Amino acid sequence: MKTPTSASPYIDDTPPGTIRVSVAEATKIGERALKKIGFSQEDAGIILGQLIDNALCGYPFTSLPRILAIANDPKTKAPRRPVRAVHETPVSAMLDGGNNVGYVAVYKAAEVAIEKAKANGFSIVGVHDSYYSGRNAYFVEKIVNAGFVTLHSACGQPHVVPPGGTRPALGTNPICIGFPSAKGPFILDMGTAALQWGEVQLHARIDAPLPDGVGVDRNGMPTRDAKEALLGGVLPFGGHKGFGLSLAMQTMGLLAGAARPNGNVQDYGFLFITFAPDLLMPGDQFAEQVARLMEAVKATPRKAGVDEIRIPSERAFRERERRRREGIVLQKKVVDALNAL
Amino acid sequence: MKTPTSASPYIDDTPPGTIRVSVAEATKIGERALKKIGFSQEDAGIILGQLIDNALCGYPFTSLPRILAIANDPKTKAPRRPVRAVHETPVSAMLDGGNNVGYVAVYKAAEVAIEKAKANGFSIVGVHDSYYSGRNAYFVEKIVNAGFVTLHSACGQPHVVPPGGTRPALGTNPICIGFPSAKGPFILDMGTAALQWGEVQLHARIDAPLPDGVGVDRNGMPTRDAKEALLGGVLPFGGHKGFGLSLAMQTMGLLAGAARPNGNVQDYGFLFITFAPDLLMPGDQFAEQVARLMEAVKATPRKAGVDEIRIPSERAFRERERRRREGIVLQKKVVDALNAL
Repeated sequence: MKTPTSASPYIDDTPPGTIRVSVAEATKIGERALKKIGFSQEDAGIILGQLIDNALCGYPFTSLPRILAIANDPKTKAPRRPVRAVHETPVSAMLDGGNNVGYVAVYKAAEVAIEKAKANGFSIVGVHDSYYSGRNAYFVEKIVNAGFVTLHSACGQPHVVPPGGTRPALGTNPICIGFPSAKGPFILDMGTAALQWGEVQLHARIDAPLPDGVGVDRNGMPTRDAKEALLGGVLPFGGHKGFGLSLAMQTMGLLAGAARPNGNVQDYGFLFITFAPDLLMPGDQFAEQVARLMEAVKATPRKAGVDEIRIPSERAFRERERRRREGIVLQKKVVDALNAL
Repeated sequence: MKTPTSASPYIDDTPPGTIRVSVAEATKIGERALKKIGFSQEDAGIILGQLIDNALCGYPFTSLPRILAIANDPKTKAPRRPVRAVHETPVSAMLDGGNNVGYVAVYKAAEVAIEKAKANGFSIVGVHDSYYSGRNAYFVEKIVNAGFVTLHSACGQPHVVPPGGTRPALGTNPICIGFPSAKGPFILDMGTAALQWGEVQLHARIDAPLPDGVGVDRNGMPTRDAKEALLGGVLPFGGHKGFGLSLAMQTMGLLAGAARPNGNVQDYGFLFITFAPDLLMPGDQFAEQVARLMEAVKATPRKAGVDEIRIPSERAFRERERRRREGIVLQKKVVDALNAL
């Protein structure tokens, strides 16, 4: 099996052991599986909205296979309550996620963020007592398509070892920022860890070595053995700066109520800070300028052999156009496992 | 002369060629110089507020020596107008910086950010037609001390070469995020370039080699020669992720009106997104949790030989306490040059 990499994790054709299905077929497979493990029709629809989009955007490992991970998570088996606001103002809400999976709870937080920003030009919405929210750009694109700029932070339980440390202290804590643009959204979606935790798990499962400078073992010593890294942790990306960003995202999570469920300040929290560009300048003028900035950066003279200066999210959106026509590639093993649920 | 590094640029004692002065003495030297090059008493006071704080926090190169850089900047010699709002709502303002140096214009933007956030719990304030704002943490600490969380972005003219490119396309574009905490502010202040541009200039001036992986020459090829890098540029920190963050900060700058003065989308813009924690939870409870998070991260077990897991801004604030008692160390050459203005 090919080593997955975060740069280009998608499977380009239909190799042995995979099948190509339409969006409708993939949705049907996923819906049946999610309902089988206890999700309502509504929740299954919300979860699949993202899982299918992830596959279309070229991230097959964060698509239908995640249903198997959700099925195995002890939190999925624990009782859940409807998502509800525990504190609310016209421009803000802290939501109790009610132990709903992040795909659902964070989706609902994004909806509240849009609704409040539509009414007031600004909103800040957090959600806690949730887990596993998937691909942040999915939520952020929704908010950007409603006309807003948004900053979305997520944080979780410790997997990231601070510089100089031997044990994890921070989540892999992504930061995601989205802007409307005249030529389609500009979305930056990046983990602050050197590698996503799901990728470490995947490397361990398929026995693939980790890239250099990513993993540490239980004594904080560098390792390329993914199984050792599962017992240790991963480093932040970019040294002290990545550590600082990760810590800032963990702090944002506190504003989302991360510590409410268990008093634990190193736990899950998801925050959206959203505002209308027209608080500062006409929205269409801003969108036009963003498009011009992207063009200017893409027009940077390139080194020999470099085809293109690539803007974050550009490849994913191009993939999506293509895969909408050509269909989604799934691993047969995954489909069989989903059908066996 | 010692090679400056961004990790610990301060001079620990009073080596030959330096003098130790009190805050009052340093202020007097700076005030005279700033008034001599055309600043009002009020503006000189604002500028020195930061320059002295930078020295106290252990950043001597961003302290009084900057007055020499300001004096030599063609923008300082060009006419300036008072900072004024070109668009304003109760929660937002886009300010025309009137070609005032950033030390002044961004300070005034921070004041507006505080005032509007006090009235409404939230504010978004940008300023353009300005340059050179110095140390972002200075402004952010002011806002945090007023009880708010703030995200401050700054962007400028191109010095940073995108991955795969041969010419600069983005500014060194810092991101600064500040949170109140029960044990003093937590402030992350980081450039998205591998090295600040001012440090490249300094390395060139004193003929010190750049660290590896920082500079590129005018053909985009790696170089450790700072003079070559001045003609080329620097790389983003942390590869594609740092590039993405830099691009996001440049986009934030558009919201601050970066393109207004000259229609240039790759120019200076400074933005503050500010809000009260109590939009989500009681402010003192949040500050308490931030302090607990910092303690938990600092308590991470450490590798042999590592004294401490250091939190961003921690060292600077400790330095400040010490230097308030012990005074500021200045280079005699700098003092002579200031007195000769």
